[in-house]
Amino acid sequence: MRTLARDIAKHIDQSVTIQGWIHKKRLLGGLNFINIRDRSGLVQVLVEDKTEVEKLRGLQIGTVVAITGKVYKDDRSPGGAEIHEPTVEVLVPVTDEPPIEIDKPISHKSEHLETLFDNRPIGLRNLNEQALFKTKDLVCQLVREYFRENEFTEIHTPKLLAEATEGGAETFTLDYFGKQATLAQSAQFYKQMMVGVFERVFEIGSTYRAEPSATTRHMSEFLTIDAELGFVDFDQLQNILGDLLLYVVNESWEKNEDTFKKWNVNKAKLPESSKDIPRITIDEIHDMYFKDTKIDYRSEADTRPEEERWICDWAKKNKGSEAVFVTGWSAKDKTFKFYHKADPTNPDIALRADLLFRGVEITTLSMREHEYPKLVAQLKKMGGDPSQPGYAAYLSAFKYGMPPHGGFGLGLERLVEKLFNLNNVKEATLFPRDINRLAP
Amino acid sequence: MRTLARDIAKHIDQSVTIQGWIHKKRLLGGLNFINIRDRSGLVQVLVEDKTEVEKLRGLQIGTVVAITGKVYKDDRSPGGAEIHEPTVEVLVPVTDEPPIEIDKPISHKSEHLETLFDNRPIGLRNLNEQALFKTKDLVCQLVREYFRENEFTEIHTPKLLAEATEGGAETFTLDYFGKQATLAQSAQFYKQMMVGVFERVFEIGSTYRAEPSATTRHMSEFLTIDAELGFVDFDQLQNILGDLLLYVVNESWEKNEDTFKKWNVNKAKLPESSKDIPRITIDEIHDMYFKDTKIDYRSEADTRPEEERWICDWAKKNKGSEAVFVTGWSAKDKTFKFYHKADPTNPDIALRADLLFRGVEITTLSMREHEYPKLVAQLKKMGGDPSQPGYAAYLSAFKYGMPPHGGFGLGLERLVEKLFNLNNVKEATLFPRDINRLAP
Repeated sequence: MRTLARDIAKHIDQSVTIQGWIHKKRLLGGLNFINIRDRSGLVQVLVEDKTEVEKLRGLQIGTVVAITGKVYKDDRSPGGAEIHEPTVEVLVPVTDEPPIEIDKPISHKSEHLETLFDNRPIGLRNLNEQALFKTKDLVCQLVREYFRENEFTEIHTPKLLAEATEGGAETFTLDYFGKQATLAQSAQFYKQMMVGVFERVFEIGSTYRAEPSATTRHMSEFLTIDAELGFVDFDQLQNILGDLLLYVVNESWEKNEDTFKKWNVNKAKLPESSKDIPRITIDEIHDMYFKDTKIDYRSEADTRPEEERWICDWAKKNKGSEAVFVTGWSAKDKTFKFYHKADPTNPDIALRADLLFRGVEITTLSMREHEYPKLVAQLKKMGGDPSQPGYAAYLSAFKYGMPPHGGFGLGLERLVEKLFNLNNVKEATLFPRDINRLAP
Repeated sequence: MRTLARDIAKHIDQSVTIQGWIHKKRLLGGLNFINIRDRSGLVQVLVEDKTEVEKLRGLQIGTVVAITGKVYKDDRSPGGAEIHEPTVEVLVPVTDEPPIEIDKPISHKSEHLETLFDNRPIGLRNLNEQALFKTKDLVCQLVREYFRENEFTEIHTPKLLAEATEGGAETFTLDYFGKQATLAQSAQFYKQMMVGVFERVFEIGSTYRAEPSATTRHMSEFLTIDAELGFVDFDQLQNILGDLLLYVVNESWEKNEDTFKKWNVNKAKLPESSKDIPRITIDEIHDMYFKDTKIDYRSEADTRPEEERWICDWAKKNKGSEAVFVTGWSAKDKTFKFYHKADPTNPDIALRADLLFRGVEITTLSMREHEYPKLVAQLKKMGGDPSQPGYAAYLSAFKYGMPPHGGFGLGLERLVEKLFNLNNVKEATLFPRDINRLAP
């Protein structure tokens, strides 16, 4: 019977067998301490017997062992107990020194990231790295909990598409049995169609962008938390996204505070109610930024990265919120897509909000044009051809009845990046993909 | 305030407002009954007033409405109540008749499937179709519950890969910034590498196969439930997969019996313990089939589809199990991949089992070769080059210590297909993809 590392304190004075990897070795004269890692954590083993010490000679971190020994209470040890008088069985010897040290925090300095990613399968054995990705898994669980609680159905939409109907040059294309296919840049059309079915849907799915530049913010493959819901207005949509952010931040801290502390990050400041997350127009941000810095972006249609950082700092200090909804997007320029909805009371403005969190945009949210004749007109006006096969099914959903609806797409890795205050979205990705990296 | 369809019986004799789609219309002389569909179900509305009837004239199924009226108890109605004396507000009119009738079961006969898939966005509004895909969502939830209960960590592995390291011609390739990339045919290498990190991992992820034939069993994009775990032996691995199947079958029936009954399907017969799922070798199946039918496949290395159906029927009758593990796979022919493990006590035989369920294979499970020198030798023997970049990270995981481990990949859509006794895996896919279909 195997005992897990976290359970050994339940077996004080008993003999147990543990199985795992040698995670750390310390030789102190005649005393050998080794730490064994299994899926539940670490356990410390004191090896004194010469025969047993001999078995370990020349073996490196990563060696897989089974250890049978007696459990002693020891408050200095991980788990409050350690194993003495062990019999060591080497299951898989490792004789080469690993390319990356896994028993201390691994550098995430930008100049070390390529090494980190090149050695991912080994570096992830570090407990801090594990904790980061367990938290990412937790975030996915919390997102699912939130959506189910609010009666969303989880869907799976195809990532192989007939054409890049949403436009955009940054698509990957491939040969599909003699036809051309593209990889999905978003689940946009599919999640909207599914509003006609389930009313409220979400997906955590892969998204592909042939992003031709190497930045800290872009990857060519990443996960998007997509949501779309019917019978909703612009305010309610912001509340729902705000509630999701509050739920994820609060619950992940509730359940994983130790991990965040290990990573030296603070809990994001957010108001108690999503209704109190500031909703500020682009023009207002330009004005506020100009007043504070005398730098004038007031003629620009979008916010600048430095303004995004500034407004989040401002909101943190003045509104107790590191999140800000940026509204007031033009319905007359190229940021307005054909499926977006203009404000009926002010047709120059889109019913769109970007959610900034800790200085960067993590989501775009918008109401969609749900009336078939208007949608077709907007598509044509922007140069689209409604008779193109890629639009047929999408438009049919509207022809046969779509309610007022809206939704958002939230980058999972970017959200995790901000929860941990990382500097690069790839640090929150097991095996990142960008213009320079397709392996491991 | 909007009331959902399922809640109206809580408001007998009160006035409520519901919002949804007209799902059905019946005109009985002066009496008009309409059924309104929202995310929670149906509610029946009796429209008598001439002005209100007039508002509905010419409007088709799919029209989006808000209806305010008084709730009357009525046991014949869905939900035990209906709405009388309504005021109708047409939110979005639909004036064309939908291309597919959604208020009665939609034909799944093979000759009607293309029509079904062509009209997916509308056909899915049918309540039986919705129930099927809600059950698929439930299956995903149950799979996650099972794995979490057993301390698996959910991972997300890349689908854009540097090369088709697993071999196989049926890969999609694409241009990746001037290099060639392929779409993942499996998560095999990644989930194995992650065993070195989390010990137990799973993923529900997209899988791509450039399958050049149109069959009822193959798609070019589908979802795989992948699992991989360390410190496990061949028997335990079969127990774990068997337990997963038992959990999914039992719990989905517990929670969704109504849906299965609507689809006229029976609960799959399975033993109480996964240990009692029969484990039969290929040779034994050939022998049993020969004795029963006098048809002789005893010289063949694999089972035939008719044998797979036969052995599942046999096990159902004789062992109370519609699932069978097929063992006794050769370690000497091309079914043996370089990462498979041969039985140390009988090196001609692979530690591999296929799980048959209701007559078809739904999973292949195997122990993996975990010792670095043997793995490299097997790779070379099968013509692979360990120095190829695509193998580097994978092999490094073994060089720096991998425990005995194994895993399986289970097609989600195929599992749902068998739970519903469907004839075609595409019926269990929202937007199926095959050689002839890339839209909608």
